[in-house]
Amino acid sequence: MIDAVRWVRTPENRHEVHVLDQRLLPLRTEFVVCSDHLEMASSIRDMVVRGAPAIGIAAAFGVALGSQSFRADAGIPYSDYMEGVSRILGETRPTAVNLFWALNRMKALWFPESDSVLPAGTELLFQEAQHIKEEDVRLNMAMGDHGQRLLPETCTVLTHCNAGALATGGFGTALGVIRAAVGAGKIIRVFADETRPYLQGARLTAYELMEDGIPTTLITDGMGASLMAKKKIDAVIVGADRVTSNGDVANKIGTYGLAVLSRAHGIPFYVAAPFSTIDFSLSSGDRIPIEERSPDEVTHIGPDIRIAPEGVSVYNPAFDVTPAEYITAIITEKGVFKPSEIRSMAP
Amino acid sequence: MIDAVRWVRTPENRHEVHVLDQRLLPLRTEFVVCSDHLEMASSIRDMVVRGAPAIGIAAAFGVALGSQSFRADAGIPYSDYMEGVSRILGETRPTAVNLFWALNRMKALWFPESDSVLPAGTELLFQEAQHIKEEDVRLNMAMGDHGQRLLPETCTVLTHCNAGALATGGFGTALGVIRAAVGAGKIIRVFADETRPYLQGARLTAYELMEDGIPTTLITDGMGASLMAKKKIDAVIVGADRVTSNGDVANKIGTYGLAVLSRAHGIPFYVAAPFSTIDFSLSSGDRIPIEERSPDEVTHIGPDIRIAPEGVSVYNPAFDVTPAEYITAIITEKGVFKPSEIRSMAP
Repeated sequence: MIDAVRWVRTPENRHEVHVLDQRLLPLRTEFVVCSDHLEMASSIRDMVVRGAPAIGIAAAFGVALGSQSFRADAGIPYSDYMEGVSRILGETRPTAVNLFWALNRMKALWFPESDSVLPAGTELLFQEAQHIKEEDVRLNMAMGDHGQRLLPETCTVLTHCNAGALATGGFGTALGVIRAAVGAGKIIRVFADETRPYLQGARLTAYELMEDGIPTTLITDGMGASLMAKKKIDAVIVGADRVTSNGDVANKIGTYGLAVLSRAHGIPFYVAAPFSTIDFSLSSGDRIPIEERSPDEVTHIGPDIRIAPEGVSVYNPAFDVTPAEYITAIITEKGVFKPSEIRSMAP
Repeated sequence: MIDAVRWVRTPENRHEVHVLDQRLLPLRTEFVVCSDHLEMASSIRDMVVRGAPAIGIAAAFGVALGSQSFRADAGIPYSDYMEGVSRILGETRPTAVNLFWALNRMKALWFPESDSVLPAGTELLFQEAQHIKEEDVRLNMAMGDHGQRLLPETCTVLTHCNAGALATGGFGTALGVIRAAVGAGKIIRVFADETRPYLQGARLTAYELMEDGIPTTLITDGMGASLMAKKKIDAVIVGADRVTSNGDVANKIGTYGLAVLSRAHGIPFYVAAPFSTIDFSLSSGDRIPIEERSPDEVTHIGPDIRIAPEGVSVYNPAFDVTPAEYITAIITEKGVFKPSEIRSMAP
């Protein structure tokens, strides 16, 4: 069972969070041990853990780890200190809104405690983070159940990036829909975009689906269009990093192009995401901050292998925005919605 | 001056052809020395040299090298032997039609000689191959002159793969148009798709354009659509491996998707190719044989670096077909044509 973020209690009764190092998959399975919020912030920023729901879970555990590291004798009130913890975690990745959702949810627990913390407070924060994680798996399964009904009995699906167990508490959003369809007895074949520059599709999606025995063919990001033209793709399913109230979707760079190509070929384009991915405070996708990452991700494979000339200029946005008009439906734990229906679901 | 295929005479008065090893660029500049047609066939098949016009030039030199290796005492008539040479060279890459065009052009020279060869015959074949190469540069320059007129004074161009000096006798087709526009005083900025799996954009196009001081930004193949949506792309220019008489174009995998995206964003989509790329014998693009290459190109970077799980299934077509309807114009040495006008230019 793939488990990207694990809460562990040491023999000395300290809490640790072991984060599966997704940078090394599928070649090596190693965990980064996080003992405080700074280590967790690095793990999120450096993409040891990635995927919007998993980032939220990791950040929640980061808050709990921060609380554990609080020292009353340092002269800072607990609430000020925890504001700092929350800010550090919030500055790691700007696009995925689940991060801020999780920090807010955790804040509701530590905020009342003001300038001191009880050991029970920290324990409570870990339990809440674990609760967020377990809840995410349940949401993914509900999403899978709703979403799989959209797929025909025999179906070839194209997916981009990794919106699977590794990107969530477990099971996955887009890959959760695929898993649920297989679970419902449907015959599902998957084409996985390798998803440059970070190769989440080649490294993570192919790995996850092979582990589950779901027939998967790896392609480069430029090949999907030609498969669509040959009528080899019945549906496209992706996850989301942020959905705005008008139904626009920020997701991994390359998603927008796939959506336009799907429309041009008459192929349904589905987004699977929990409600925590919806940012009702933003009216449209052009307001979503888009993270630009290091040129090294494009010019190198791993830290050492250079694949482009020294000094070349690079543009490396991690996400793009797909306007609602290109999205057939948004699959959530509460059901399947047209993008235009999202606004009416605001809490 | 970039020169991918060089005819060299040794001190012993033997001919060699030195082929720039494009697999190693931009990190290393090394040449593969070809002394016979088998070495040239390997160089073409293994992509030491690539790009439709350059493949044609290399194959022409391969014919001459084959003739040099003919041994009258081996008991095979020269013409039979040369048929074999031609067949071996013709089996290296199925999609680029310039290969077959060059082999046919060379055949016109060796065919009459029947069962023996004069030293002057081999010399003549080398001169013809060199003539094809020099002619290609002139065609590229004519193409550049015609094509650059299509571009506004200040313009950002997206290109895919490498249709540059490295892919031709020199100067380039798509990059030749860009070079000619810069030469005409236009302010041209280029976004270069890295072009997975073989990374011709990252390794070759970025390298060529940087050498020429043309401002170039490297992106992954999934990023172009989002630049189009932001109105950052004024034109897309690519090369071609084969054009059919109805104006359909086979080119590097990913080209078709770019063409559909260009149409969706109202951006002109240009193909630059010499007349030798037009296969008037084929009525439409669905008849073009599309080469599928090794899964290793997708699962590995270079020979050693694995980036996907062991045993993953891979689909790796090297080319796709863009229907004529998505192509704004085809730029040739004889002028700029609408795809529908190609048929009327048949010789």
